[in-house]
Amino acid sequence: MQERERIAVLGGGSWATALVKILSENGAEVHWWLRNEEDVQHLRQYGHNPRYLSGVSFHLEQVLPSNDIKETVASANWVILAVPAAFVQQALSALDQNAFEGKTLVSAIKGMIPGENILITDFLEEHYRVPAEHQCVIAGPCHAEEVALEKQSYLTIGSHDLTRAEEFCGLLRNRYVSANPLQDIDGVEYCAVLKNIIALACGIAHGLNYGDNFQAVMVSNAMEEIERFLHAIMPRPRNLTGSAYLGDLLVTAYSQFSRNRTFGNMIGRGYTVKSAQFEMNMVAEGYYAVQSINELNKRLQVDMPIVSAVYRILYERISPGVEIQILKTKFK
Amino acid sequence: MQERERIAVLGGGSWATALVKILSENGAEVHWWLRNEEDVQHLRQYGHNPRYLSGVSFHLEQVLPSNDIKETVASANWVILAVPAAFVQQALSALDQNAFEGKTLVSAIKGMIPGENILITDFLEEHYRVPAEHQCVIAGPCHAEEVALEKQSYLTIGSHDLTRAEEFCGLLRNRYVSANPLQDIDGVEYCAVLKNIIALACGIAHGLNYGDNFQAVMVSNAMEEIERFLHAIMPRPRNLTGSAYLGDLLVTAYSQFSRNRTFGNMIGRGYTVKSAQFEMNMVAEGYYAVQSINELNKRLQVDMPIVSAVYRILYERISPGVEIQILKTKFK
Repeated sequence: MQERERIAVLGGGSWATALVKILSENGAEVHWWLRNEEDVQHLRQYGHNPRYLSGVSFHLEQVLPSNDIKETVASANWVILAVPAAFVQQALSALDQNAFEGKTLVSAIKGMIPGENILITDFLEEHYRVPAEHQCVIAGPCHAEEVALEKQSYLTIGSHDLTRAEEFCGLLRNRYVSANPLQDIDGVEYCAVLKNIIALACGIAHGLNYGDNFQAVMVSNAMEEIERFLHAIMPRPRNLTGSAYLGDLLVTAYSQFSRNRTFGNMIGRGYTVKSAQFEMNMVAEGYYAVQSINELNKRLQVDMPIVSAVYRILYERISPGVEIQILKTKFK
Repeated sequence: MQERERIAVLGGGSWATALVKILSENGAEVHWWLRNEEDVQHLRQYGHNPRYLSGVSFHLEQVLPSNDIKETVASANWVILAVPAAFVQQALSALDQNAFEGKTLVSAIKGMIPGENILITDFLEEHYRVPAEHQCVIAGPCHAEEVALEKQSYLTIGSHDLTRAEEFCGLLRNRYVSANPLQDIDGVEYCAVLKNIIALACGIAHGLNYGDNFQAVMVSNAMEEIERFLHAIMPRPRNLTGSAYLGDLLVTAYSQFSRNRTFGNMIGRGYTVKSAQFEMNMVAEGYYAVQSINELNKRLQVDMPIVSAVYRILYERISPGVEIQILKTKFK
């Protein structure tokens, strides 16, 4: 009999919870690190995550919740990062530099390290010496909520090492999850970062009472903005209408459950950034992402009207109405 | 002072009504042919179309409703066709072959002539000898309902003659409508036909309880299917993420008000084609379009899994559940 895969999942949010469900149901032994001690207790006692996708029940012989990140990481040969980008540094701070040696790291994070303005994979390489070919990224259009409901979903696993990506795909595939490997790991990672900013922009426009016609044009123009950026930062042939790029953007930009869209919507309706964040009590990744991309783009000088507008609205207090009005004239 | 443009609009549906609003508010004299005599009477008396966008009021010194298609066409130098594709032959049957001589024809129809399986522009060239360069096509993501609400919308005018397209753009542009010319008239016309089929497929999947993750992947895969088809039938470089292609698909596929999506939804829930049509009391263009494209594709042999699935469901009574199950395995 094949040995059970031992997988560490770091993070207690909805996406982490969905991944634990998929992986454990496929027979892996999942070591699950959650920051909150009460959540770990609840999971151990009842087999449910009290905060996210609380309807999903876990078999505790296969799912091992823990507060100890060191032990969790040490127990596994695959380590999946699923904490918000803004908390990665803090979450990993208990680990020493060699903690990931010999392991494959899989980022399920759609964001960049704030301040450093680097991708998660680059952060892991720089700070924890994880070689690029030992890393994967989970991309693709996938609401965690729909995974919980076992609705058909598609994931793309990006990696420089396609064999490794294919191996991870095999751990994910089941009755309702399809998974495909792809070599363009940086492309899908940047695209995942950008789509959160675009969803935020869609929310802002919606909050300002723009309609479906405008949103469709915004998304079309966004695809061109994404293409320009990816071409500047990481040129290679890629099929941007693929589900890891366009599909991922669509599921975020058109979902009323997307945090980024909701956050943008509140900004469009006139909330300040502070009050919107307070009201939502959640992190909208796009809020940090737009600062990182804006910073990167000072060097690249790519024409990015949507990203620039979102940046000015969130960080320079320019009126959303004024910025969308300007965008309106630039769109085709 | 410049002479007023005289424009004929043929059709009484919501898109025709929205176009009459835009053009007349811009100062054109609009001769408006509606088939239904009572609607013409109502319009003449109250200045509202009783059936569609009934909140929009028209100034009767500029908008001239009529039941007489000959007179309507004769009065104008621009003729806009905005009847369902399935009724074009019948609607134009009262006109003689030279009725359009010296005029510019603008198709606002997103469909093909059933039976003949040709585009509207090709039909006009073959049956009414309208030269290709005297024709335009209106494309772009645009719900008529949002035009009525004066929400920002974008139209693309396709024509072999870019000067003519730009001239027509000038007649459309206003505070809430942007318009841009494009030379790829056949590409946008075929794309408009295909997107109705895709929206129908999205509706079928939704009716079968597939979720947002699946729809995002369906739309991504559809873009590749559209690309393959356009490349086979009319190869030329085109930017498929532009708003006349992707944007148009998005506004239809993601709208709960799209007739094609609604029709597909009923099919997915188990209605027969007949009962769904009876219930809706409206034409879903995609129903006819899929037959035409399927016929055309017998020659082209393009790999079109979504179109083929919709065809088999609607015309060969294959179960929607079975067809979507097969699609599921083909998507990436």
